[in-house]
Amino acid sequence: MKSLLQKFFEPNRIALIGVTRTPGFGHGIPRFWKRHGWLDKAYLVNPKGGEIEGKPVLKSISELPDGIDLAVVVVPAQAVKAAIRELGQKGVKACVIESAGFAETGAEGCKEQDEIAGLARQFGMRLIGPNCVGVANTALKFATTEVMDRALEPGPVAIIAQSGVFGNILLDHIPALGLRISKVATLGNKIDLDESDFLEYFADDPATRVILVYEEGIREGKRLLDALKNATAKKPVVVLKSGRTPLGQRATLSHTGSLSGEDRIYDGAFRQGGAARAANLDELIALAKTFSSQPRLKGKKIGVLTTSGSMGAMLSDALFHTGLELAEWSDATSEQIKAMAPGWINVKNPLDVGPSGIFAKALEALFSDPNADGYVLIPVIPYAAIEPWLAVGFKMKDFFGDIKTLRARAKDKPVISVLLGYEQLEKELEELCGEGIAVVHSPEMAAMVLRSLLV
Amino acid sequence: MKSLLQKFFEPNRIALIGVTRTPGFGHGIPRFWKRHGWLDKAYLVNPKGGEIEGKPVLKSISELPDGIDLAVVVVPAQAVKAAIRELGQKGVKACVIESAGFAETGAEGCKEQDEIAGLARQFGMRLIGPNCVGVANTALKFATTEVMDRALEPGPVAIIAQSGVFGNILLDHIPALGLRISKVATLGNKIDLDESDFLEYFADDPATRVILVYEEGIREGKRLLDALKNATAKKPVVVLKSGRTPLGQRATLSHTGSLSGEDRIYDGAFRQGGAARAANLDELIALAKTFSSQPRLKGKKIGVLTTSGSMGAMLSDALFHTGLELAEWSDATSEQIKAMAPGWINVKNPLDVGPSGIFAKALEALFSDPNADGYVLIPVIPYAAIEPWLAVGFKMKDFFGDIKTLRARAKDKPVISVLLGYEQLEKELEELCGEGIAVVHSPEMAAMVLRSLLV
Repeated sequence: MKSLLQKFFEPNRIALIGVTRTPGFGHGIPRFWKRHGWLDKAYLVNPKGGEIEGKPVLKSISELPDGIDLAVVVVPAQAVKAAIRELGQKGVKACVIESAGFAETGAEGCKEQDEIAGLARQFGMRLIGPNCVGVANTALKFATTEVMDRALEPGPVAIIAQSGVFGNILLDHIPALGLRISKVATLGNKIDLDESDFLEYFADDPATRVILVYEEGIREGKRLLDALKNATAKKPVVVLKSGRTPLGQRATLSHTGSLSGEDRIYDGAFRQGGAARAANLDELIALAKTFSSQPRLKGKKIGVLTTSGSMGAMLSDALFHTGLELAEWSDATSEQIKAMAPGWINVKNPLDVGPSGIFAKALEALFSDPNADGYVLIPVIPYAAIEPWLAVGFKMKDFFGDIKTLRARAKDKPVISVLLGYEQLEKELEELCGEGIAVVHSPEMAAMVLRSLLV
Repeated sequence: MKSLLQKFFEPNRIALIGVTRTPGFGHGIPRFWKRHGWLDKAYLVNPKGGEIEGKPVLKSISELPDGIDLAVVVVPAQAVKAAIRELGQKGVKACVIESAGFAETGAEGCKEQDEIAGLARQFGMRLIGPNCVGVANTALKFATTEVMDRALEPGPVAIIAQSGVFGNILLDHIPALGLRISKVATLGNKIDLDESDFLEYFADDPATRVILVYEEGIREGKRLLDALKNATAKKPVVVLKSGRTPLGQRATLSHTGSLSGEDRIYDGAFRQGGAARAANLDELIALAKTFSSQPRLKGKKIGVLTTSGSMGAMLSDALFHTGLELAEWSDATSEQIKAMAPGWINVKNPLDVGPSGIFAKALEALFSDPNADGYVLIPVIPYAAIEPWLAVGFKMKDFFGDIKTLRARAKDKPVISVLLGYEQLEKELEELCGEGIAVVHSPEMAAMVLRSLLV
């Protein structure tokens, strides 16, 4: 099975069935493949023949050479069955059906996709889709749909998304948030391969450190539970599921033909399977960043260093809501801070150092405190207050210290930074924090991700 | 009272007590005032004298001319009392104390600030602070602290923030989110003027359409309730309050000396006062955008047009959670959509038009449907799918229609857009939506703001 899934992510020869010269679905794929060096390995099929991107277009599937590892089907729904039959006859064993118009449109579409699934089984062919955009593998800059170049920068996060457009939007959105991807599988109506198959595959994928799953409905609960248990024993899995309410359930049914079922059953299954559950997309992304960069939280006591008392107070509320606690600074820490702090600073946790300039030295002390199991840093600063200094050559490091290097002092504890303010400063502060600190943009998100790291 | 508060926002002559030539608090104010034409109206005071930004520095408060409307005090905590006495003797009636080191540091600081308050009362002087950054008035490009130029673009949102740094960070953060400000008051320890005073003032301020309040603690509940009732009868008020939990309460005490009290009591008061309550900063900002641009929601039925089925499903879940419902399209609408849609589109609500290209025509039909009380649009699109068309001169308008103009068809109903994906596309879509549509970035936020608009 593993070697078969490999055909989807590392194909040697690929075929695009239904390539079009006119705008619409699947139109830009040859150009995309050309840009990333895949067109040489590709065969294009369309009854009209001709040439696309300098490549001759075959008039039928029967003209394909032997040894096609992966076929990508983008023909209209009514032509899919015939295409699958011909591909099966050619000996193709891996196929992505991107065409829509099946179970999600009603009973007839449902029957049609069942027949396609049966046909594939006869040929020993495995299918992804229909109603999806297939796969991506950033290490090889390969994808079965056009994605932005920046989404193909390799990273540690694998994505399993039920929906094509949504999977694609995710890929557009997350590079700007500092997340990079290893592999993607979009599943659509899941007439054959499903999330359990890819959970299993990504669990053993050395390029993947965290697996994100966007779900609309699950048919084989027991199989998913086993796949989750297997995967979470190896790496963190975060699940976002739609169809949690009657309204959402009706919507998923008409979207990917998914029966999304009782939410509390899934909740139990995800928990039992060891997966973290995200309530929304923002949480999904924040958890991915956190799990791919942070160690587990071994106790509930959090140490907080902030330049804004208000944000420290908001964080305190948020920690309380998640069941976490504020650490009591050790006597040694308190004395160190008192020795360096001006009189108006109150040596508490959260430690609010305001504009005193002692952030870096305080951080050094706090990171050595045995009483804290994890940390939240809130190094916010009004731009106008710092701009004159930046203008004459000062760096953010001069105000906040070399956070990246200091972080090593607490290397077995998670550290989250909350950044907010002028976006250019946020960016510089994010660089100062380095890849060893997970950056979020609200106190509530910081508390949520820390709670998810609790062993 | 009103005319006295006016001195804070529209002063004729201002004084800066404690201007410094060395880095630190209050250092950049003269340069900031110069840039915005306020230095001509300013008098700078520091015992060392000399010259700053080409302006002579007076050595004592006694050297100030008569007729100073507003004094901004940034001297160290121990020198504040003497400064207030001298300012009182000079006849100054409005004063911002930005210095920190009072009630937030303990009993001694508490006593000191009480004495200052008593002193001011003797002189009939009104105070903002201490431990704050005072006020801003964008119409006059005036502020008592340095803020980014872009934060001074006039707009409809007034902010009352307890904390200085946080108020300033808000001003740095929100212009990029499309929010523009009318006036700001940061309150700090509130030894005299408080949120009730500014609620009253902003309620009658013609430049302000929405009032945001960030609170840590309230002393006079009855007065606040009256001020809220008065203000919300005139314009929407959104409140974000910290110190909602035991941990947050401890933090606010050491931050601004606030006793934040029982959260459910405040919750009741805010509700009774007619204010919307934000659970976090993101909600505060989304509600400000919504209230400053949208009519009220007159019923619970929401119509949804999306290009992503998954996001339509997430939105459906979120609507259900807030108690809103999905509208049933009228027969006329359903027929119109069926006539224009390709076969794979399922005519439901949410209406998922995928990449069919009928978004604009569908929107026209939906906006005329009497069954919907409000709308959510989710015009998301993978960048790679649209980029080739943009490259040859197509505009977003060609794909999604002239949303801004179409919006007039539903002018008495709120319309929220959820944008997600490549940030450049988001920006162009935001422009396409225009100022008459509130833009948010998650389905959950769309449901939350709509619910807050429900009459």
